[in-house]
Amino acid sequence: MLGSLPTFARLEAELGKLPGIGRKTAARLAFHLLRTSEQDVTALADALVEMKRKVCFCRRCFHVAEGELCQLCADSAREGQSLCIVQEPQDLLAIERSRAYRGLSCSSWGPVSARWYRAGRSQIPQLLDRLEQEPVEEIILATNFTIEGEATALYLAQICKKRGLRVTRLAHGIPTGSDLEYIDAGTVQQAVDGRREL
Amino acid sequence: MLGSLPTFARLEAELGKLPGIGRKTAARLAFHLLRTSEQDVTALADALVEMKRKVCFCRRCFHVAEGELCQLCADSAREGQSLCIVQEPQDLLAIERSRAYRGLSCSSWGPVSARWYRAGRSQIPQLLDRLEQEPVEEIILATNFTIEGEATALYLAQICKKRGLRVTRLAHGIPTGSDLEYIDAGTVQQAVDGRREL
Repeated sequence: MLGSLPTFARLEAELGKLPGIGRKTAARLAFHLLRTSEQDVTALADALVEMKRKVCFCRRCFHVAEGELCQLCADSAREGQSLCIVQEPQDLLAIERSRAYRGLSCSSWGPVSARWYRAGRSQIPQLLDRLEQEPVEEIILATNFTIEGEATALYLAQICKKRGLRVTRLAHGIPTGSDLEYIDAGTVQQAVDGRREL
Repeated sequence: MLGSLPTFARLEAELGKLPGIGRKTAARLAFHLLRTSEQDVTALADALVEMKRKVCFCRRCFHVAEGELCQLCADSAREGQSLCIVQEPQDLLAIERSRAYRGLSCSSWGPVSARWYRAGRSQIPQLLDRLEQEPVEEIILATNFTIEGEATALYLAQICKKRGLRVTRLAHGIPTGSDLEYIDAGTVQQAVDGRREL
C-alpha cells in the first residue's frame, strides 16, 4: 500500500532509524507531520541541518559546544583545581542542573572498552594529556553507576592516583524523596557502607 | 546550561513538539542526532521537506496520495459498489493490510463533532456529494470502536440509510490469537451478541 507513496515511506524509514522509535511510532509521527503545517515541518528540518552544522564538541573537554570552547571551559570563574569526569555530555547537564559543582569538567565519551578504543571514540588519552598541562588537584569520577561506568571509574582512579591526584567518586545512596522499603538491596547496602557522621 | 547552545536547544524544542515525545526523549534524540553522521541527519531533514512538498490527499477519498488520486482510487479493478469509510488514512492501511476488502474507500478525517465541523476538517459533506454521484450500494462503516467512532458510525448510518443504501459495520468480537479469559467484558458481550451460525 505504501509502495505507491515512496516519499511518505521514506520519511517513515528515516524516522524509524531514531532510537526508541519503531515501525508503528514512525508511522504515527509521519501521519502527524503530514497534518502539521509546512512551516512547522520546515522548522524541524532546518533545526536538524543547523544543529549538525553548528554544534560540535569543545576541544578541551569534549562537551557539546557551538564554538571552539563550551560554556564551562569559556567561563573563567570556574574553579580550576577540580575536574569532574562524566561518561556522556548529557550526564554533565545533570551535574550542572544540580548547581552543586563549580569546577571544570570533562566528558570521557563512553565507557572504557576495547571496542571504544579501537573506534577511537574514547577521549581518555586526551584527558590524560590535559591532566599533564593543568593544575588539577582533585578528580571527581561521575561516570554512571553501571557495570561499565564503575569499570571506567576504577580504571581512571588507578591512572589518576598514579599521578598523585586526589580521586573522589559521587556518593552512592538512597535518592531524595524515596521510600526505603522500595529501594533495591544493592543501593541500601551501599548507603549503609557509606553512612556519614551527623 | 543549554542557554549557550541555542541551535541544540532549538532542535530539542522542535523534536519536543512531536506527539509522544517529551522533554527527556527530545533530549535523548537530539544527543543521538548529534552523534549521527551528517549524511543521515540531512537524509531525515530532506525526507521531512520532501514529504511535505509531495504528499497530499486524494481529491476523491481523502486518503494519502502523491498525485491527484491515491493508489486505490487510481486502481480501476476495485469494486465500485461498496465503499468502506474509515476515520483516518492509517485505518485504511490496516484494512488494506488485511487484504479482505477490494472495494472503494473513503477517509472521513476524524470523528463527527461540532469542533471538526467548525474547523472545516470533517470530510462528511464531500462524502455525501460522492454518494450522490457514484453507484455505491453498500457502505461499510470502519470507524474506530471508541465512543467517538461509534457516534460517527451511527450518524453516517442514519444519513446513508435515508439514501436507501445498505449499511454494514465491521464485526465486534474477540481478536485473533487471544485468550478469552483476558478479554474485557464489553468485548465478550459484543462477541456473544454477534455470535454466528457455523
